[in-house]
Parts: sequence; structure tokens; C-alpha cells
Amino acid sequence: MTTVVQHVLNRLRDIGVKHVFGVPGDYAFPVNDAIAEHPDVEWVGSCNELNAAYSADGYARVHGVGAVSTTYGVGELSAMCGIAGAYTEHLPLFHLVGMPAMPVQAHHSIVHHTLGNGEFNLFHKMAEPVVCASAIMTPQNVAAETERLIAAALYHRRPVYMAFPSDLANMTVVGEAQPIPAPASDPAQVDAAAQAISDMLGRAKSACVLPGILVSRAGLNQDLQRFLDATGLPFATMMSDKGVLDEDQSSFLGMYDGKLMNEGVRRFVEDGDVVIMAGTLMNDFNTGAFTANLDPGRTIDIRHHYVRVDGMTYQSVEMKDLLDALTEKLPNKQWPRPAAEVVRMPAAGGSGDDPITAENLYPRWESFLKPNDILVAETGTVSLGMAFTRLPQDATFQNQTLWGSIGWATPAAVGAALAAKDDQRVVLITGEGSHQLTAQEISQFGRNGLRPVVFILNNNGYLIERLLCAHPDISYNDVARWQYSELPEVLGCEGWFTARVTTSAELDQAMETAAKADTGCYIEVVTATYEAPPMAEQLHENTATLYST
Amino acid sequence: MTTVVQHVLNRLRDIGVKHVFGVPGDYAFPVNDAIAEHPDVEWVGSCNELNAAYSADGYARVHGVGAVSTTYGVGELSAMCGIAGAYTEHLPLFHLVGMPAMPVQAHHSIVHHTLGNGEFNLFHKMAEPVVCASAIMTPQNVAAETERLIAAALYHRRPVYMAFPSDLANMTVVGEAQPIPAPASDPAQVDAAAQAISDMLGRAKSACVLPGILVSRAGLNQDLQRFLDATGLPFATMMSDKGVLDEDQSSFLGMYDGKLMNEGVRRFVEDGDVVIMAGTLMNDFNTGAFTANLDPGRTIDIRHHYVRVDGMTYQSVEMKDLLDALTEKLPNKQWPRPAAEVVRMPAAGGSGDDPITAENLYPRWESFLKPNDILVAETGTVSLGMAFTRLPQDATFQNQTLWGSIGWATPAAVGAALAAKDDQRVVLITGEGSHQLTAQEISQFGRNGLRPVVFILNNNGYLIERLLCAHPDISYNDVARWQYSELPEVLGCEGWFTARVTTSAELDQAMETAAKADTGCYIEVVTATYEAPPMAEQLHENTATLYST
Repeated sequence: MTTVVQHVLNRLRDIGVKHVFGVPGDYAFPVNDAIAEHPDVEWVGSCNELNAAYSADGYARVHGVGAVSTTYGVGELSAMCGIAGAYTEHLPLFHLVGMPAMPVQAHHSIVHHTLGNGEFNLFHKMAEPVVCASAIMTPQNVAAETERLIAAALYHRRPVYMAFPSDLANMTVVGEAQPIPAPASDPAQVDAAAQAISDMLGRAKSACVLPGILVSRAGLNQDLQRFLDATGLPFATMMSDKGVLDEDQSSFLGMYDGKLMNEGVRRFVEDGDVVIMAGTLMNDFNTGAFTANLDPGRTIDIRHHYVRVDGMTYQSVEMKDLLDALTEKLPNKQWPRPAAEVVRMPAAGGSGDDPITAENLYPRWESFLKPNDILVAETGTVSLGMAFTRLPQDATFQNQTLWGSIGWATPAAVGAALAAKDDQRVVLITGEGSHQLTAQEISQFGRNGLRPVVFILNNNGYLIERLLCAHPDISYNDVARWQYSELPEVLGCEGWFTARVTTSAELDQAMETAAKADTGCYIEVVTATYEAPPMAEQLHENTATLYST
Repeated sequence: MTTVVQHVLNRLRDIGVKHVFGVPGDYAFPVNDAIAEHPDVEWVGSCNELNAAYSADGYARVHGVGAVSTTYGVGELSAMCGIAGAYTEHLPLFHLVGMPAMPVQAHHSIVHHTLGNGEFNLFHKMAEPVVCASAIMTPQNVAAETERLIAAALYHRRPVYMAFPSDLANMTVVGEAQPIPAPASDPAQVDAAAQAISDMLGRAKSACVLPGILVSRAGLNQDLQRFLDATGLPFATMMSDKGVLDEDQSSFLGMYDGKLMNEGVRRFVEDGDVVIMAGTLMNDFNTGAFTANLDPGRTIDIRHHYVRVDGMTYQSVEMKDLLDALTEKLPNKQWPRPAAEVVRMPAAGGSGDDPITAENLYPRWESFLKPNDILVAETGTVSLGMAFTRLPQDATFQNQTLWGSIGWATPAAVGAALAAKDDQRVVLITGEGSHQLTAQEISQFGRNGLRPVVFILNNNGYLIERLLCAHPDISYNDVARWQYSELPEVLGCEGWFTARVTTSAELDQAMETAAKADTGCYIEVVTATYEAPPMAEQLHENTATLYST
């Protein structure tokens, strides 16, 4: 005998969900109980629901799928910004919501966690724009609806909403349903698209690939790498796509960010005959505040389920099938690449009592990273700086570039750390203003025995806002002053290495200790208020195109 | 020359808004700038947007109106649970949202803080169920729309949503509009209703009043008190209505909570000939998990804008006008009251090394409160316990009884403290599980020079959930272990008195120090896991009616 909620958990387990993040609540007790008692699924308590959603987001980035459980009304609305982030950033999250029992709903009872108006379907409806599918799970529909929701989440790589009335959640499943097969390509369409691409490249003297984050979301990084290896095509990377392919290889051209950074890369990408976008999304920060200028007529746009070539859209073309076909079909060529154009960071300056400047901080962080690291970089000056470091082999860069909700990084790093392999290190770099939104989640590292390296960049407020607003010193860019380096211990992270560093030598020493530590590490890095990496300075100069296009 | 956003701030200032809580963001810069630069309105930075909304909620409870400002998408969705709480609890909040510029919206640009689908009206629509009115503010509509939104917020005592496209916010207001007059009664309806009530009471041998929270929301506490003084009617109080009238007066019968507590009060209320509900909302926790049984035929229901008497609804009857009419019309009588039925707490037991039990904790908290205090009690065991203490003169009890979102209390206490008069003390009592959701907001007390007394009840997890779920010891009711008493200093609250107490003597000593302190105070009170006040135990026994009705 399997209950409604057990059935859902079994199916989520089948597709890889091993942890569910959440905050329990009375209407969700049947869901909470089933998770806590499931042999293959683990409950991970979060400090609050938004943090739980962010953690599930971070988990899904590393693990492919994620899940979050909240109670009715108060819980689900608190998580909503995190669910919307997963929608925007294409992460399949399963949001399991506990609901009041059906008789309570039918009687329009005025119960806690409702608006007091007897309406029970409002929150479900409010969630609709930020999920790709949703359902209220009943014994009768759960078999089929679970398959529909799983298929939708995996097809769109976006969250789904599953609500469980508390009286139905523990009832026995009625009926059964088969998993919906993964979408298949139409072979004729794949052939036609591959031929069109082959023709275009055949006429091209120069070309490059822009590997996009949707490749990672589909788990096709290796397939794309094989395609590059087979063809010899070089690639450049846009900001939200960093780390999709290994940057430590000779085909890497550097970061492409429109006119804001790396002029050589821009010219090579934009002046070439063909640009192959593979799972790339064109948004403000990816396009250098819309200063990127890609000719649609020379651009091939490969998406999860279709491809656009020279104005034609080929539907029913799965990304993997197309990449495989191209890998087989296209010749290996000596595609030109601008030898000297790979942008590297300058060597880190500063030593001894020298203050920590942007010029000596970001290269140090670049050097600190090691192969296989998961770098979780908070939206703001730190992500703008770290995007232009060069990642070591198999390291990944996690950033919420499009949704850009500050506070995301700290809980996301918890989720990433739970999903990481044993030999994988999570490095969280966040600004102190962003950290304040969700700082309590640090406690979940300690509680779950996780050992991240956390850097808090304390630059006395919201630096990216100072650079973008009219009056940098205006009061609203200030934040409360905390003693950051004491936070982990207070939040229950016992035995961590913590430090507050204000000079280059202190930073070097702290990094050296952290590199060898077998505990969690938490380092507050203090800089002057306006120490910003070049990309942040560039945005400061380009607010006109950033905000008016 | 007045800009769109300046005009709105001027009008909010006119109706009493002196502080706006928020987190700044780039699309909201024009709003943020205007607030920071307004001579009569102060920007209060919060750690995150949900906390900002809760703080505005706490502010509005004390001050009558409140305001919160967030940026587009990420900010407004993060605040949504707090806005929904204000909707449910009838608090007029003005939610000022910064939006991308109109050309960006018209071009359907893929910009940060959007879902990446080129749609810009989704979040506005998502907010609709949790606000009573909303508008996108433009130079052309701002004069009229501001009046409409203010009138709606004050009429319904609920939040409104005002969005400001960043390019329009600083444009000059076009046109003008007069404030919409407060709603007026139809004198004939007031007379008819007063006569019907007079007739009902004329036939009654016993009667009582149930003063409700909506009286406080309308600022009519003194008017209701005059009505009681004039008529001699006694009153009993339901949980969410605690503190609406002074409990330190002879007409107070005690707390009425259906069959769960205070049987003498229940019998008196339910067996009497007439019950006058004044601004009372019947919900699960107000009705003792629906064990209250009020005969509609004997119940008069006075609401903000209408009254129901004996099955008849009299519309266009403003609460104040009706109370005034009744105060004048009704005779003073020796209404019966059950002399010995006022429920008082037992004297606090325990001393020396005795552990802190519920029996000796709640009476101590009752004794700790002094006249004029604002008690902010978090939803959970602490609110269930504190509801049955007797408040000193003019003390108020703030609790989010219906929405019941844990985490609310800490930021709400910040807002209440900013709104409080100089001689008014804010006492925050919260459980440690709830505190973890929003604990960082403690830092705003320190940053704003506020001096609350904060009690953190550390009972090793979510106690109310342990009492309501199937397996009290199940893992999801555990929370991370923090060193609570060290939090204020780490979060920048310098010079606070902090303590961690585990025995009765330590608790007594800490309370003595806190009572005299001229700094903020933060006391972690440690009890055994299952130390619960009687009402929480009663709910534990009555989950059937709580969840199935």
C-alpha cells in the first residue's frame, strides 16, 4: 500500500531527488512525515522557506533536480522568490506544499495560514506564473499527475508545484500510470538542421561557439565538449554561462561581454562568419548591458528542443541528438583563433600591510580555486569580478545571473554542498550586504557536517548599488555592521576556521590555512568602500544601455 | 515641481507614514532616492524584504499605517508573505515597488529580476489576491490613483501595491486630485441599528461584549471603552483580540477560547442572552479550534462599515458612529458578571536551581510586563501562553494570530519599536525555532538605537509542532543549535545586556536586570523540550476539531 505522498516521493527518488529542503508546518505534516520516514529521501531542515528554496536551487544546479517542501500560505509565499529564481534560471524543482484538509476547504473555514476569506486556491494560482505546471494531488489523480509534472519539470527544466491536502496525502493511491518518455527528436528534422548548419559552417572562414547554461541544465556538457573536440571550433563564454565548458583548454577564447570587456574577444565573436549559440540566453548581463551585437543572420541558436538556423526553426530537434549528429557530420578544421586574446587576470599585487584592493583580491581568488571546485558567486560585484577569472579544470561557476536575487548564494551553497561529491569543495563568495539577507543559513553547513570555504567581502554596504545609483554615498546603500567572522560559531558551526582580514598578508595567510583546512572556513575580507572589479566599473559607465533598452 | 514618487510620499506623509522599511534595488533607485531625500519620511534599511514587510506590519500595528519599499521581481516576491500577513491581519501597508523603465517593458527586454520571458505585469498580478488595490503610477494617473489607493487602504485596512516605472517616477505630476473623504454613515441606518440593538439588550438579562482586533485597527479603542463605561457591559477577550481593551479593569471577564480554556468564561459568554462582537473575527485560534458556540440569533456583529443584528445587516453604519450612538442611547445597567471567573495566572513557582518550567515561566513574564508595554508575541507556544496572562494597564498584545507566519515577530518588533512612543517599551517574546527565520533583523534594533527587551524561548525545536504532529520527536522538529545570547553583539547591537538562563534564579536575576536596563536586552530562556503552556496542551488534545472543520 502506497500513499499519495509516498508515491510522489518514490517517483522523485527514481529521478534522483535524495534530499528535500524545507520548513515543516502543521498542514504539511503528512508530507513532512513521509519525507522523514522515507528510506531513500532525506529531510533537510532550513532556517526559513526562502532559504530552503535557494538551497534546493543550489542542489539542483549540481545534482540535476531538487525539491523543497513548505506549508500552506505562509510557507509557500515565503519560498516564492526562490521558486521564481529556479524558473528563471531553468532548474527543475519540485515544490511540495501541504494544504488544509478538503472538508476545511469545502466549508470555507477561517483557519490560520489563510487570508481569512474562505478561499483556498489563491496561493496555487499565485504560483502559476513561476512554475511550468501544477496540481493538487489526490488519490485518484496522483499516479497520472506525478508523471505529468515530472515530465514538465524535466522538459522545461523549471519548477512545478504539487499541493497535498492533508487528509488526502496519506490515502492509498488509486490506479497507476507509466512514466512519460523523454522527448524524442524527429530524425528528418535533425538531419535537415545538421545539413543547414554544415552548409553555413562550410562557407565560413571563422566561427565560434557560445556554450550556454542550458547545456549544463540538460547535463550535456560532455556532449558539447565532444562536438568542440571533433570540429576544432573555439568558444567564448558569456557571464551566466561561465563554467559550462572547461576554461582550462586551448579552444577557450575568453569571456565575451559585448563592448564592456575584452574587446579582442568581442571583435572575434561579432566579426566572425558564424556564431553557434548552444543553450545561451541573451539577457542584460550576458550581453554587456545590451552592447553585444550578434547578427541574427550569422547566428545558430541551439536550444533544448529546437534549433534556429538562418531564420528557419527546426522543431523536434533535441539538443543532444543535434550535437551528436554535428559531432559525426562536421569535419575537423583548423578554425582560426586569436592566439593572444585569452584574457587572463594580472598577477595579484600587494603584500604585507598593503590594503586589499580589487586588483589584488580577484587574482588571489582565482588562484585559490582548484580543479573540481564548485564556486557559488553571489550576484553583485563579486560575481562581476569572478566571472572574469579563469576557472581551473572542471570547476564550475554558479550564479543567479538573470533572476539576480541577492541573498541567494548562501543557501544555494548549502544545497550545492549537499549535492557535491565527496572530493568536491564548495567555495562561496558573497558580499556582506547580500549575506545579511540569508546569513542564518550558514548554520546548516555546520548542522549537516559540510565544510565549505566561505568568503564574505565586506566593503561597507551594497557596492554594486553605489556604482549604479545617482548618489553612491546615499544612506540606503549602508548596511548594519556585523562581526561576521564570529557568526559561524554563534550559529553552531563548531571548530570552523574563521578570520577577518584587512591586509594582503592576512588574506594570504587565511587563504593558505583555508586551502589546507579539513573544517569549514569563513573569512571576512575587508576592503575600502569603492574597491570594484573592472566589469562593475564598466556597468557604472554604461547605465544608459543597461536601463533604457 | 513635484515628481510622481514625491507626490506619493507627500500624501503618505499626510496620513502619517514617517518611516519606510525596505531593501534598495536598481529599478527602485528613484523610489529609494525620493524616500532618503524626503524631509519628513525616513528610510529604514532592513536585512531582507520579508523582514521589511514584517517591520512595516509591526509599525502599522502601533502607528496606524506603514510602508515598505522593494525592487522589482526579486524584492516584491520576497516580501509577499509579509504583505499577505498584513492583508489577513487588516493592516494598511503601502508597498512601493520599483519597476523597469517603460521602454524596457515595451521592448519585452530580457533583463535581470524578470522571468526572462519579456513579461512585466506578472508580479503585479501575482500580488492582487493579497492587496486590496493596486496601480502602476504614471505622471498622468498619480494624483487620482494615489487618492484611490489611500482610500482603499484605509477603508479596508489592508495593503495596497504601488509600482513605479523607473523612468516615470521622477517625472512631474500632471493634474491634481482631492483626497477621497472618509466613509460616512447613513444616519437613518445608524438609528435603526442602534434601536435594534437597544431592543435586543432591553430584553436581555445577561450580555457581554467581545472586543475585536478590528477596533484597534480603526483606532476606536477609546470609543469602545466609552461605550462599555456608559452601559456597564462586561467583556471577554478572544486570542487575536487581546489588549484591545485594558485588561486591568473590573469589567474584564477573562479570555474566551471556546471549550479549550476557562470554562467559566465560556459558559458566561455562550449562555448569556446577547453577545456583542465588535470587530471580532471568528477563526480557528479565536474559537478554541472551533469549539466556541455562539448562537447567531443572540449575536450582534459590529464591523468597520456595517453591523448585523438578529439576522439583519445594516449597511453604511460606520463603527465609530454606531458606538457613539449606542453610548448615548443605552442605559447604564448592573449587568451580571461572574465575579470569581476572571482567570488569573497562578503565582510563579520555582526558585534557585529549579529548572524553568512553563508553570513558573509564564507567570514571571506576566509580572515582567508593565503598563504601556507593547508585547510582540510570536505565533506558537509563546503566544498561546502569553494570551492567558493578564496585561497591565494600556499594555498591548501583538500577535499574527490568523496568518500565523513564524518569523514575523522579530522584524515586527523592530517596526513596533520605531513607532512606539519614547516611554513605551517593546517586549519581544519568541521561540528559538521561529527566531531563526528572521534573526538577523535583531541588528536593526542596534542600528536604529532601539532598546527592546527580547526573550528567546529555547525549547530545542518547534514545540508547537511537536504538540500537533504525529511523532513529536521526529527529526523535522529539530533546529540548528545556536548560541543565541551572543547574537546581538555579533549583529552589531553594542552594549546590550544579554544572558542565557537555565534556572529560576538566573531567570529572576536576568529579568531584574532587564527591568532596570537602559540598553537593549536579549535573554535566552532554556527549558526542557516539552514545557508548554496550558493552551498549547489543549490544542494537542483537540487536533481533531482544529484540522477537520
